[in-house]
Amino acid sequence: MTDRAWTVTTSRHVLQDRWISVRADDCVTPAGVSVAPFYVMESPVLAHVLAFDTDDRAILVRQYRHPLRILSLELPGGIVDAEDADPVAAAERELREETGYTSGHLDHLATLAPNPGRSTSLIHLVLARRVMPGMATPEPSEDIEIVLVPRAELAALACSGAIVNAAHVGLIMVGLARMTALEDSSLATLK
Amino acid sequence: MTDRAWTVTTSRHVLQDRWISVRADDCVTPAGVSVAPFYVMESPVLAHVLAFDTDDRAILVRQYRHPLRILSLELPGGIVDAEDADPVAAAERELREETGYTSGHLDHLATLAPNPGRSTSLIHLVLARRVMPGMATPEPSEDIEIVLVPRAELAALACSGAIVNAAHVGLIMVGLARMTALEDSSLATLK
Repeated sequence: MTDRAWTVTTSRHVLQDRWISVRADDCVTPAGVSVAPFYVMESPVLAHVLAFDTDDRAILVRQYRHPLRILSLELPGGIVDAEDADPVAAAERELREETGYTSGHLDHLATLAPNPGRSTSLIHLVLARRVMPGMATPEPSEDIEIVLVPRAELAALACSGAIVNAAHVGLIMVGLARMTALEDSSLATLK
Repeated sequence: MTDRAWTVTTSRHVLQDRWISVRADDCVTPAGVSVAPFYVMESPVLAHVLAFDTDDRAILVRQYRHPLRILSLELPGGIVDAEDADPVAAAERELREETGYTSGHLDHLATLAPNPGRSTSLIHLVLARRVMPGMATPEPSEDIEIVLVPRAELAALACSGAIVNAAHVGLIMVGLARMTALEDSSLATLK
């Protein structure tokens, strides 16, 4: 919240079902300018996971993305369900379902937003270390290919354009920076 | 397009006006699984600009984002209009309108997508070098604060969590990597 926030004079849902919710807010800016309607996507909270196996390879997933009709290389993850204890548990569950990998070493790294200009969605970024392979249980509609990327190559890959999803490029780069900071502080503790 | 693409059996618009367009596609996956409806945001093409002034400072903008009711630090940019000759021209126009800065040195760096799992939108990333200050002409509803960040500090800032918009973190990191590649190839030409 900020003193530059808009005042909402009226608000209504214009589209709402199990998979989507769109709200139309009639707003007035602090300068008195009317913005009506302003459409807000009421989108779920997400958890995505930057996971590394015992050979320090990142676990990425390549999957079909219908709006652009492309295959997209992304971090595993998905919606934080009501049954998930917290975003870390959601990330762990999504990693296991989509890829089969499991980990006992999880850390919450950051909370970002995929599209703050249009959507209420947040993305929790979770680090999973020393993950072990297992049996994936994807949704019937999901067709997920696992792609392993050595940690030393991940930043260059993410910034090469090969990862089209700009938000996932951002998550990967934030994740790598936070990992380095975590490891530096662990080393400092050991000294 | 890919051989893993879904087949669309029926498609209809469920919400459509000047500011928003939502399509509901009834789809069948290659494995024969029905996904119906799948909602697609038919979102505009965007152009965002990584601009540096003659002191090698990046031009960022801090502005109110209503869905999350926060101030968000982002790259200047916006929708590629029908009147724009191309995405580079759109980026130049958005930079000028939002910040007043102008540049005669523009390069198209990359094409990414903010949300390929939900939206048709693409983001063109444009580099603007040696920009010069001028008079901004924002929309009446826009309240834009310009933030100058030395190039040497930009990657650390983007990965610190201070930039909440994950897609813009991605754009900044892709942009910095491409700039370095451009400069390396220019240096190689000089040698």
